[in-house]
Amino acid sequence: MPDAPLPDAYEKLENRFRRIALLGEAEAVLHWDHAANMPSGGADARSEQLAELKAVSHGLLVSPETEDLIAAAGRNTERLDDWQVANLREIERRHQRAAVLDEDFVARHSRSLSKCEQAWRKARAESDFAAVAPALEELIALVREKAILTGEEFGLDPYDALLDSFEPGGRSADIDPVLDDLAAYLPNFLDEVLEYQAARGAAVMPDGPFPEETQRDLGIRFMEVLGFDFDRGRLDVSHHPFCGGVPDDVRITTRYDEDDFTSALMGVLHETGHALYEQGLPQEWRLQPVGAALGMSIHESQSLLMEMQVCRSRGFIEYALPIIRETFNGSGPAWEAENILRLYHKVERSFIRVDADEVTYPLHVILRYRLEKDIIAGKLAARDLPDAWNASFKELIGIDVPDDAQGCLQDIHWYTGALGYFPTYTLGAMTAAQLYQAALEAHPEIPDGVSIGDFSILLDWLRDNVHGNGRLLPAPELLTRATGRPLEAEPFKRHLKARYLPD
Amino acid sequence: MPDAPLPDAYEKLENRFRRIALLGEAEAVLHWDHAANMPSGGADARSEQLAELKAVSHGLLVSPETEDLIAAAGRNTERLDDWQVANLREIERRHQRAAVLDEDFVARHSRSLSKCEQAWRKARAESDFAAVAPALEELIALVREKAILTGEEFGLDPYDALLDSFEPGGRSADIDPVLDDLAAYLPNFLDEVLEYQAARGAAVMPDGPFPEETQRDLGIRFMEVLGFDFDRGRLDVSHHPFCGGVPDDVRITTRYDEDDFTSALMGVLHETGHALYEQGLPQEWRLQPVGAALGMSIHESQSLLMEMQVCRSRGFIEYALPIIRETFNGSGPAWEAENILRLYHKVERSFIRVDADEVTYPLHVILRYRLEKDIIAGKLAARDLPDAWNASFKELIGIDVPDDAQGCLQDIHWYTGALGYFPTYTLGAMTAAQLYQAALEAHPEIPDGVSIGDFSILLDWLRDNVHGNGRLLPAPELLTRATGRPLEAEPFKRHLKARYLPD
Repeated sequence: MPDAPLPDAYEKLENRFRRIALLGEAEAVLHWDHAANMPSGGADARSEQLAELKAVSHGLLVSPETEDLIAAAGRNTERLDDWQVANLREIERRHQRAAVLDEDFVARHSRSLSKCEQAWRKARAESDFAAVAPALEELIALVREKAILTGEEFGLDPYDALLDSFEPGGRSADIDPVLDDLAAYLPNFLDEVLEYQAARGAAVMPDGPFPEETQRDLGIRFMEVLGFDFDRGRLDVSHHPFCGGVPDDVRITTRYDEDDFTSALMGVLHETGHALYEQGLPQEWRLQPVGAALGMSIHESQSLLMEMQVCRSRGFIEYALPIIRETFNGSGPAWEAENILRLYHKVERSFIRVDADEVTYPLHVILRYRLEKDIIAGKLAARDLPDAWNASFKELIGIDVPDDAQGCLQDIHWYTGALGYFPTYTLGAMTAAQLYQAALEAHPEIPDGVSIGDFSILLDWLRDNVHGNGRLLPAPELLTRATGRPLEAEPFKRHLKARYLPD
Repeated sequence: MPDAPLPDAYEKLENRFRRIALLGEAEAVLHWDHAANMPSGGADARSEQLAELKAVSHGLLVSPETEDLIAAAGRNTERLDDWQVANLREIERRHQRAAVLDEDFVARHSRSLSKCEQAWRKARAESDFAAVAPALEELIALVREKAILTGEEFGLDPYDALLDSFEPGGRSADIDPVLDDLAAYLPNFLDEVLEYQAARGAAVMPDGPFPEETQRDLGIRFMEVLGFDFDRGRLDVSHHPFCGGVPDDVRITTRYDEDDFTSALMGVLHETGHALYEQGLPQEWRLQPVGAALGMSIHESQSLLMEMQVCRSRGFIEYALPIIRETFNGSGPAWEAENILRLYHKVERSFIRVDADEVTYPLHVILRYRLEKDIIAGKLAARDLPDAWNASFKELIGIDVPDDAQGCLQDIHWYTGALGYFPTYTLGAMTAAQLYQAALEAHPEIPDGVSIGDFSILLDWLRDNVHGNGRLLPAPELLTRATGRPLEAEPFKRHLKARYLPD
């Protein structure tokens, strides 16, 4: 029998990747449940459930039948439209990346990941790195194995092989100069900002308590303002805030501090930026690789655009503050806009990345980026992480880490095997600044909308230029089309100067 | 090559059914999430996710390889112990039942089920049967197809083919006489009870409101008293209370009425009975068919034993009442034990099965049992359900159904394709009475424990005689071993007389 007609091969691939996507969606919901709901006794069963789902989808992804279909579809792409061609490219990419790893490896990796994550939750609560170190060593050994195998297949350094999985086309050789540049620029800038803010006087935290339920209601109110569709998503609580679920049922999480409403509120608006991206992905390409979100730097740009560029701006704060004040029955000087802006623009050397301001944040990222490159290169063992972390922290941020809970145990990433992820946060911050400045050039009326709680023009621009594109274009091309230029640090620096130094 | 050595075939089967169980566990968590969390926009994606998981596990269950392994393992069972032999029997049963249905049918059924369930949620909220009728007709057509196909394979009537899936070995020919007997006995008994209660005077509902959060805390407190392990489970909210999740992460749900704490409290204790069964299943047979719970009548016996036999008893109420009173700051005559007992023993003709007392409950079940037999026999169309329901309700329970929300829309079962399930509630009520009377004979000190909130002797007896057995023994044999006799209605009638009529 001759090869099947090509559109048929392509259609079969779509059907197969639809099944893979559905298994991935089931995993996403189980993962969210793990973080938001699951009691500790369910951990073993959950890790086995996830391992089985991964094994099944991995089997579909790497099967010889899939390879044959890709070859057949690739021999004649003339009858495919642009989206289908891009979908086939993404299908091939996913197949190739997965084919490097056999089912047994995938299952071992998934089990190790779940165990390590579970141990980390306990270790972090007790600031006890030793309690997670063995699980982390085991997981990192598997991650390095994956990095080496994948790197060999694609002709990439092991670290780049990992980075590429979060940021397609991302290479440390490209990232190093930009991050080294920021690492050189920021310390002086930071000194200048700290000096300015010290002279200006401290901000005052309004008096609480701010009940969790009230904070939650307020978060939901502003999520609606930003455009979050509650028929297709939820807000819940987890230890490490994240945006999970699936595009038509996005699950974002936060955590509340009843003495300080400001952190959860911006956390929610940050995750809402991620969620708007997911909810805005092209409906007609649901469950196909080309319909998924792009790399992590674009994803992070969407959360940072909402949080940093828009919601921490004077225009948004002046709009939101009367609502916040009314919600918490606040009055007095601490509730003046100038004070709240100082709170939201406060810069300081501190320990926790997710609570860091946007000036010091890149330094937190650079620290992690350098350490994880050393880990993957085999220059740094898991058990030596606390010492390396603390020394590097002192060098980059200038303060002494008091304990591992405020040091190398603070982030979930490494404990779920996500090495190669961290740099995308700062690439995202730069992308956010560049996108927002382009949106403002195209629609100078956006700030007027924001100042009355109308995000529609901004959201439409993002839907057109980012969300609705799925993975049709690679990130650099998408950014160039949207902003007229490739990624640059300048818009980010412009933004920092305008916000943190006097005119 | 000769056949693989037999223990090897058996081990391969265990491994395969472990995978099937893990996929089933993923489904269970997604199903719980559907009921407890999911926004409406997630429905389509969720129904596709569940369909895909079912398709994969169905594929494993019915594959020729599975059939071959069963044949090979079955040719030599001498080296298997009792549990392994029973596991092989359960494996074969599951394979045979599933092999009747092809993957396409399973996927269509799952999709139709999710759609119908979603439509039902809306239809019930709006008491609009027409809104769900088309989805129900479609689903029932598939259920009938399944019943006929399965019945032909096993030489069973279509209805028995469905019943057997919930209650292995259950046959309507055996059930009809028992239920007809109850249908004949209960009306006179009911008249007598109603007359006695009318003469005695009405119970008074304590004044609320009873905040949802407080009710929840109270439910959790008594769940702990009964022995629920919160490291391996949760309590949440859903429209139709149920016990879901997996044995090491049992998810029970309830719904709250802020004007009446009594209903949610007993609802929670009922689901806790189910949960204790799941949490008590044999740990060493997790993820194997023999390690699962027995048929639904045994499952329901565990919830009714806790709720009806124990927690509505004078001993438990006298123990619990001071705690309840303190929780809600209650005082006055409405909070006296005699009044609360009258509330919890109140018998009346009413519309909602899940709120019905245990005297009228069997009549609600008999109504559904008769209607669903007619539906499967093709004598009753889905669209004619409201009229048939209302007529039958008038005949059996003697009152006029005011609307479909209080009629044929009240229960989720049929709208998820679960026909053949209802009779197991009343079989469960009879089993509960028989088991509890046997436990009391073995341990007359149980009521003393209950009266101080110590359930340990009762729970140990249930662990030994029911929970820990998994599916090692069929239900009738398990009951005979535990109580010395086959299932009889007498203990249930004894219980009703003792509780509802004067000495």
